[in-house]
Amino acid sequence: MLPVELIKKKRAGCALTKKEIQNFITDYLNEKIADYQMSALLMAIYFQGMSEDETLALTQSMMNSGEIVEFQNSNQFYVDKHSTGGIGDKTSLLLAPIVSSLGIPVPMISGRGLGHTGGTLDKLESIPGFSTQLSLKEFQDQIHNIGVCLIGQTPTICPADKRIYALRDVTGTVESLPLICASIMSKKLAEGINGLVLDVKFGSGAFMKSEEQARALAKNLMLIGLGAKKKVRALITNMNQPLGAFAGNSLEVQECLDILKYPNNLPNCFYEETRDLSLTLSAHMVAMARNIEFSEAYEACWQSLSSGQALKQWETLCKAQGGNLSDLPKASHKVLLQSHQQGYVHSFDLEKIGWLNVDLGAGRKTLTDKIEPTAGIEFHCKIGDFVNIKDPLFTVYGKNLDHIKKIQSSLIETISIKEKPCLKETLIYETLLS
Amino acid sequence: MLPVELIKKKRAGCALTKKEIQNFITDYLNEKIADYQMSALLMAIYFQGMSEDETLALTQSMMNSGEIVEFQNSNQFYVDKHSTGGIGDKTSLLLAPIVSSLGIPVPMISGRGLGHTGGTLDKLESIPGFSTQLSLKEFQDQIHNIGVCLIGQTPTICPADKRIYALRDVTGTVESLPLICASIMSKKLAEGINGLVLDVKFGSGAFMKSEEQARALAKNLMLIGLGAKKKVRALITNMNQPLGAFAGNSLEVQECLDILKYPNNLPNCFYEETRDLSLTLSAHMVAMARNIEFSEAYEACWQSLSSGQALKQWETLCKAQGGNLSDLPKASHKVLLQSHQQGYVHSFDLEKIGWLNVDLGAGRKTLTDKIEPTAGIEFHCKIGDFVNIKDPLFTVYGKNLDHIKKIQSSLIETISIKEKPCLKETLIYETLLS
Repeated sequence: MLPVELIKKKRAGCALTKKEIQNFITDYLNEKIADYQMSALLMAIYFQGMSEDETLALTQSMMNSGEIVEFQNSNQFYVDKHSTGGIGDKTSLLLAPIVSSLGIPVPMISGRGLGHTGGTLDKLESIPGFSTQLSLKEFQDQIHNIGVCLIGQTPTICPADKRIYALRDVTGTVESLPLICASIMSKKLAEGINGLVLDVKFGSGAFMKSEEQARALAKNLMLIGLGAKKKVRALITNMNQPLGAFAGNSLEVQECLDILKYPNNLPNCFYEETRDLSLTLSAHMVAMARNIEFSEAYEACWQSLSSGQALKQWETLCKAQGGNLSDLPKASHKVLLQSHQQGYVHSFDLEKIGWLNVDLGAGRKTLTDKIEPTAGIEFHCKIGDFVNIKDPLFTVYGKNLDHIKKIQSSLIETISIKEKPCLKETLIYETLLS
Repeated sequence: MLPVELIKKKRAGCALTKKEIQNFITDYLNEKIADYQMSALLMAIYFQGMSEDETLALTQSMMNSGEIVEFQNSNQFYVDKHSTGGIGDKTSLLLAPIVSSLGIPVPMISGRGLGHTGGTLDKLESIPGFSTQLSLKEFQDQIHNIGVCLIGQTPTICPADKRIYALRDVTGTVESLPLICASIMSKKLAEGINGLVLDVKFGSGAFMKSEEQARALAKNLMLIGLGAKKKVRALITNMNQPLGAFAGNSLEVQECLDILKYPNNLPNCFYEETRDLSLTLSAHMVAMARNIEFSEAYEACWQSLSSGQALKQWETLCKAQGGNLSDLPKASHKVLLQSHQQGYVHSFDLEKIGWLNVDLGAGRKTLTDKIEPTAGIEFHCKIGDFVNIKDPLFTVYGKNLDHIKKIQSSLIETISIKEKPCLKETLIYETLLS
């Protein structure tokens, strides 16, 4: 079938066959199908959607466009987590050592910050010397040796996704559920994993603004995982307020290090939710890997964390990838922002906070922007808290005082304080077991 | 606004402003907007449509992308006709001499055959020596000298339409009403005309299969014409059977020449509908130009035709463009196809007939195919006629007997003959005056 006939078939709302999707992707990579035909198909998909089977076929075609990691030890259960992203979302840094310390390998290929949200790679790279640009061979070796490795995308994994994602970005075809799902899952499935836990976030700081959207995304992601014969679970979690105390690369590494060091005696009360969500995600990974009950898995994860086993594994991991944890960079400036109002915290404009953090240097506006690893924001209140005038709201960290001063007033405006009381937010809304 | 923002605006179903459309077209031609962005926008337009104002703005932006013909004589009313195409649709060859013989200039820029339908340029080029590739200067001069000129698209007219049309063809975005309208009208408006008569066809041989679709297209085309301050009328006409007796380039030229020579005493009864539709279209052109009643205009057209004035003008036109009418090529072979059945003719699969005619060499499958000018089909019956076994249905003409033999059985299958009687078809369904 000619490419134009296939575009018209999708345009008419008909389902494409597995073979048609495979050929389209292959021909696209072989330059037999032009970018302008791919973008027309993507826009037709935006309007007409894709069935479960089509989305799975697209995912697998994109996965098969590149290298797929294979591990030698077929007795092992390899497991990873994917989060749809948010502000202060640092759970990878805790669950990777927790789960792998229990002998369950965690091969994790992560991304950089995207838009207003942070990225695991940027966080790791704030650790002096930490290298995320390993080859797939080095990745496999390290998984074999210490059971965990955290790296960035390699050019050989999912090249079709790379080209299609770049095209979607400039053709208004990002916001399509099947395309989002295929992009996420093709990369994760190429990691050679047996199981995946999804942390699908909703709220003012997430890509999905409503719980319903997040649930739809989670269900679609799970269907692909199950279709590819993987174990998969999903949590629907709250991103109406930042996770934990800090957002910003080295600040988040420090928060995680503190949790690993003092799990029973947290130095900051907001660390609790970071710790608890990380333990919950870890426990689902372990429950899948060992085929045991969640409560039993949670207990094992807690033991690893509270005994210092997870901290040791984290130190081993950092050392293996060249990172020096004792030399975490510290911001040269910090500015406390106090409340001008008295009342209850009702909401955060968290996407705005994310973009202000990008302005500070904690993220990138263009691919070539340089990250300032110490830049970030500390949060002193959560939704439902009562604040008095002059109570601390935020502490802003960074290298450049001008940058900090520039965002101050905007940052204070992102928080809505009202006279009437407001309920606290629930962190984990729902757990979807396959 | 970034191109991607504009694509997303249309994707969301919002109307683009005139300025936004202009900039998108200009930037596209200046290579600031890529083909893949244009094709994404075209697909979004396919799904979301365009308002009247948007379609007009798109038409004018495409028109302004190139040269616009200007005539010196501002007292003259320049008028043209556009047909949406069909089988045996040869009215341009009659109305151009009829209308221009009355002193009303007809600047006509025509196309080649498209898909299963014929094209005026291919018909003209079957006249030995006839040149359709004149410059715009030569076009203007000939209009000034003899009041009529029939040429092909020049590279300087509507370059945006050329690029966008080629892109639509390979991205599944041809079948969009606003895009079809803008493509047709941008080229016609660039001819520097004051008025336009549209012949919008529906039926098995037309692009629009139903009367409703044809009416919608006609109304949209008219709105653009009126928006551009032109006089415009439209006829909704029947293309469930071929127009007149012949389909094929030199055969159609011969049919028109016969009508011009023997308007009162037609040598073939099917010539009547060719003559009458041509006179009707001519009369609407004249009525707009002279601002007179249709009946008065029709009388003037008939006078021109019956007095031999139109024939003289046709000869003048052919001579001016180098064509030698006395030397029309004749097919080396002709094969009569007879009915295997007895009964009433109920329908023709006219699109199929058009494609079989392309197989014979009367049209092109690819841009580089060569036309065989003498190839074509003569029709011996119309819908509603009674035929006996062995009565003639078609005569197939051409240079290559093998090609003729190859289509014979398929051609006979395009005609549906049933026992019960069937009404004759009405040629002109509706006249839309602005």
